[in-house]
Amino acid sequence: MTDVKLDARKPVLALAIGDPAGVGPELAARVITDPEIRAAADLIVVGDRRVLSRGAEVAGVKVAMDVCHSSRELRDGHGTVLVDLGHLDPVSIEVGVASKEGGAFALKNFRTCIELAAVGQAGAVCFTPFNKAAMRMAHPSYDDEIGYGAEVLGTNAPASEFNILEKLWNGRVTSHVPLSGVAALITRASVLKGIRLMNASLRDAGFAPPRIAVAGLNPHAGDGGNFGREEIETIEPAIEEAKREGIKVEGPFPPDTVFVRATKGAFDGVLTMYHDQGQIAMKLIGFDSGVTLLGGFDFPMCTPAHGSAYDIAGKGIANIGASKAALLLAAKMAAKRGRQAAAA
Amino acid sequence: MTDVKLDARKPVLALAIGDPAGVGPELAARVITDPEIRAAADLIVVGDRRVLSRGAEVAGVKVAMDVCHSSRELRDGHGTVLVDLGHLDPVSIEVGVASKEGGAFALKNFRTCIELAAVGQAGAVCFTPFNKAAMRMAHPSYDDEIGYGAEVLGTNAPASEFNILEKLWNGRVTSHVPLSGVAALITRASVLKGIRLMNASLRDAGFAPPRIAVAGLNPHAGDGGNFGREEIETIEPAIEEAKREGIKVEGPFPPDTVFVRATKGAFDGVLTMYHDQGQIAMKLIGFDSGVTLLGGFDFPMCTPAHGSAYDIAGKGIANIGASKAALLLAAKMAAKRGRQAAAA
Repeated sequence: MTDVKLDARKPVLALAIGDPAGVGPELAARVITDPEIRAAADLIVVGDRRVLSRGAEVAGVKVAMDVCHSSRELRDGHGTVLVDLGHLDPVSIEVGVASKEGGAFALKNFRTCIELAAVGQAGAVCFTPFNKAAMRMAHPSYDDEIGYGAEVLGTNAPASEFNILEKLWNGRVTSHVPLSGVAALITRASVLKGIRLMNASLRDAGFAPPRIAVAGLNPHAGDGGNFGREEIETIEPAIEEAKREGIKVEGPFPPDTVFVRATKGAFDGVLTMYHDQGQIAMKLIGFDSGVTLLGGFDFPMCTPAHGSAYDIAGKGIANIGASKAALLLAAKMAAKRGRQAAAA
Repeated sequence: MTDVKLDARKPVLALAIGDPAGVGPELAARVITDPEIRAAADLIVVGDRRVLSRGAEVAGVKVAMDVCHSSRELRDGHGTVLVDLGHLDPVSIEVGVASKEGGAFALKNFRTCIELAAVGQAGAVCFTPFNKAAMRMAHPSYDDEIGYGAEVLGTNAPASEFNILEKLWNGRVTSHVPLSGVAALITRASVLKGIRLMNASLRDAGFAPPRIAVAGLNPHAGDGGNFGREEIETIEPAIEEAKREGIKVEGPFPPDTVFVRATKGAFDGVLTMYHDQGQIAMKLIGFDSGVTLLGGFDFPMCTPAHGSAYDIAGKGIANIGASKAALLLAAKMAAKRGRQAAAA
């Protein structure tokens, strides 16, 4: 088949059905049938028809869509379609229990979606929640979605996770490293890379220009050098360099007040220096209803911030808000990139 | 004169009027005339009659109380009284501007209150907000209230700052140190000391027994050793030791969710490993309306968490809530200690 044109009327999102023991199937069924999502994008849903049917039952919705059995069968202008890989009968899965089979199912769906986006058949990848324990049972070297994405794509591109509430983004310079190792990773280059990536991602999502705040590393942002000099020697010069590139960025701000200001609307994004600097704030603000964006690849990948929610799986009570926000953000970013590609 | 008996009916609080260019004088006038405060404690207010009169004018309250001119003139059973040191005419102070004279005024009041508590004439010290810049103009080596308190008292006692919202306390193992130096300061001894001090302070404030949560140091509390081993090698053993001492303490918890749980009522206090781990959370939760307790001295010292608020000083609009909470906490802790001393 020929590539789906990214400058077509609607962006195409590849949607992987996530962990089958969690809320992934019911959330997939609900976003597929959501009128706002259907208006915003065409979906290539990747999974198993039986798993999706069960999700639709749980969700109490009726899913009607074209079905094919391999991404090779996709035709141009396909509209919303299910790629039924026929790889999991849901009767073999216990709801609320992580399993190797469930992990393998989600992993195959995710890989297929990444490959669809890599060849341009989709403009973005989305997925309903994975379960990391299940993923690791199926693929022991599985670290996180960014690592797996890089593995499938064979890329070393600087990718990073963004945590997104409706009007507030959080990105970070370092992530899953011991706190004792953070300071050594804060360099002019790493801070500048973080600012550039946040700026580009916010622009793709329609912020023009994005207003970015950078947190300091130390208490009181170093208090003029009294509690650490990274702000003076590293972070401030990186901010100045970014400003010279035309990026609207300020800081470094004291880490304990920057989110108070951001929640009042002062900034669109806060770049933090380490994992908990942002996560403590975002989880208190209510990030579980937010969206995780994996930025820095050639296409955006979006997922709800919450997990597979085994405790409420199969009850039909999972909130669709974060999943819907994830797909709408992906659609917006894919459309923007499609227009840029078309104009180029 | 003889010592005020700490087992008397009401606890006695020494209240230092804070920076005269900020909201300190008007807040002092308001707490002095507050019926709930008057019912809970007798106050020895330390400052200058003219500064307090101006504060009363701004606050629109009428202050009537006995006046003496030195703490040596205090008599037993004095009730609420002003120690008028006659050391500042407020006409020499510009509202909203830090000055050496203002700093010297607040510093002298603070020192006098500490000395009153040290000899047992007061059961606790309180102060309306200081301005650190002004304090440093008057006393260049002034670092913070704990350092100054230790200087006046000639003590090396392990004192620590607690940040307190109505039902949630935050204490920390390290404070104003560069982030790069935090991990080296996390030892079994320092964590255990932090747990003990938080437990004792919460008990003094009436929590019986206090429920304490300890945050991990690393992202995801180390994720089983994947992102740092301090949780396994240092924090967990300290928690176990504290448990053996009968302290109700749990952890280490992932730093990015422990405050979400605490705000839902799971714990009375969260002990964090470094400054911003707690401050990011507490400031988002609304700590500016809270109380700062300097714990670990022979008597508690309490102050509102907010600062001298130069922007609203003299307008009579400063909120009394945090100051009132500070004095009521001090009264409660002083009364508890007075009863303990009487029983000993």
